Amino acid sequence: MAKKKYAIGVDIGASYTKVGLVDENGNLSRETSLTTTQYKTPEDFVAALALQVQLITGSTEAKVNGVGVGAPNANYHTGGINNSANLPWKEYFPLRDVLMEAIDMPVKVTNDAKAAAQGELLFGKAKGMKDFIQLTLGTGVGSGIVSNGELVYGHDGMAGEVGHIIAKPNGRPCGCGRRGCLETYASATGILNTAQKIMLANGLIPFQSSREITEAAMSGNPMALEVFNQTGKVLGKVLANVHSVLSPQAIIFFGGLANAGDFLLVPTRKAFEEELLFVYKDSKPELMISGLMHRNAAVLGAAAMVI
Amino acid sequence: MAKKKYAIGVDIGASYTKVGLVDENGNLSRETSLTTTQYKTPEDFVAALALQVQLITGSTEAKVNGVGVGAPNANYHTGGINNSANLPWKEYFPLRDVLMEAIDMPVKVTNDAKAAAQGELLFGKAKGMKDFIQLTLGTGVGSGIVSNGELVYGHDGMAGEVGHIIAKPNGRPCGCGRRGCLETYASATGILNTAQKIMLANGLIPFQSSREITEAAMSGNPMALEVFNQTGKVLGKVLANVHSVLSPQAIIFFGGLANAGDFLLVPTRKAFEEELLFVYKDSKPELMISGLMHRNAAVLGAAAMVI
Repeated sequence: MAKKKYAIGVDIGASYTKVGLVDENGNLSRETSLTTTQYKTPEDFVAALALQVQLITGSTEAKVNGVGVGAPNANYHTGGINNSANLPWKEYFPLRDVLMEAIDMPVKVTNDAKAAAQGELLFGKAKGMKDFIQLTLGTGVGSGIVSNGELVYGHDGMAGEVGHIIAKPNGRPCGCGRRGCLETYASATGILNTAQKIMLANGLIPFQSSREITEAAMSGNPMALEVFNQTGKVLGKVLANVHSVLSPQAIIFFGGLANAGDFLLVPTRKAFEEELLFVYKDSKPELMISGLMHRNAAVLGAAAMVI
Repeated sequence: MAKKKYAIGVDIGASYTKVGLVDENGNLSRETSLTTTQYKTPEDFVAALALQVQLITGSTEAKVNGVGVGAPNANYHTGGINNSANLPWKEYFPLRDVLMEAIDMPVKVTNDAKAAAQGELLFGKAKGMKDFIQLTLGTGVGSGIVSNGELVYGHDGMAGEVGHIIAKPNGRPCGCGRRGCLETYASATGILNTAQKIMLANGLIPFQSSREITEAAMSGNPMALEVFNQTGKVLGKVLANVHSVLSPQAIIFFGGLANAGDFLLVPTRKAFEEELLFVYKDSKPELMISGLMHRNAAVLGAAAMVI
């Protein structure tokens, strides 16, 4: 019997970095984590990460094929991280090369949203799909696009910035320096902003987190429902345009805001279907919540790159 | 020495259908054509087309691998044509299967804009590129998207409707039933419409064709230049959004309106670069005119599917 294949998956987040051993069936074991923010330099961080990797490989009989890393603003082609708003180190850092040097194993690096899409493709609801889009609705909006069964990186490794499609001309200011980007409406930050506007206009104390908005919606709070309606409307419209480009089989939502489930899905689907070009009426894609919401899609997907 | 590979390429257009023998280097010979509109039923048309194909195969020593067909609203997956605004037959017609039956050779069918992109990839400026978008700016706006070296069809064969991205919310009415689609501004029809608005507002007799606008621009006519400026602005903005999805190496313009060359390219590039997300500043794509403007990209590309 052929031996099972293994890889180590790493998900570098703004606060924590998660590490785990993943097998070819998507089983995760030997989970551990680092506090990303406690390392002053990326070199110190990689030294600590390398140690965790070696502790895992040293403690298992499994043949580990390598390490896959998902990180904000990471580039699959260069293996580097650049310009990340969400990490403590701002300068370009050649993560792949430095980590490979430290652990002497193959390393692949990709953007966290692409890693999550890869996880969905191998172990989640996108299993067997050749064309889908996975949107990670977190602090920002990231995306992983799969076309013809392969992740779309673009010529420079930077495809998938669906969060920076202009949803509203001259709309809300975005961290990218432009206005009206999708992520200023459909991220955890964006929805809080929408809630704030609605609540203040009604003389109410605004919600403090996107989770609070979901909880309020669950108990039938009409303001919270209105916040999801407005958000779904913006999101659905943009996705109808993206659909005209790629015609995927499914659009899958992942990340904190996706915890809202139908509160987000129903108004998004409504706007999406209203705006959808007629040629797609008979083959319209499914809009759904990720199958990996309670598992670590990015760790799984990052590992899948090298399994 | 291995024998050269050949296929027959067919480009079904609203007025004429072009047929030719194509070799693996993109050389076209034995060109012939049919008047698409003279056939009352698609069955009659296919019978006439099959005859042309057999005349070519019967007159050459070349081993012909099959027939590739590009047609408006054709679907690569089903091999059928449906709902085409530009063809005389409106009902769904299983073109691939009927033609295959008639000639007893392999047949592949695709949308004309995708065939043109395939031609560009094999024989034009996109040779060696893995990620590009080819926009056919004709009566409408079609597109062929290549990602990871492969044409993007989407799950239902209908990806690439870039012409139906909403360029202006509540903008010009489009044949698709919605408003503000890119093709209502950036097609030959769209630019004529823009010219009409500008000319009438200035008490002038409007241009009668997009070619006339290009000729006027060549002689420095300020109205014509303004028409291209406005068109480029709309096109460049939409393409900046599409770029955020796919990050292609190049965006290539083909079709009648692309004959305008720099008159179209310069304002489009200006708007595109102004709107482009900052992460792409160092790797921004080239906007260019097709290398196959005076050759039949769709015949070449259609043949390339089966060569």
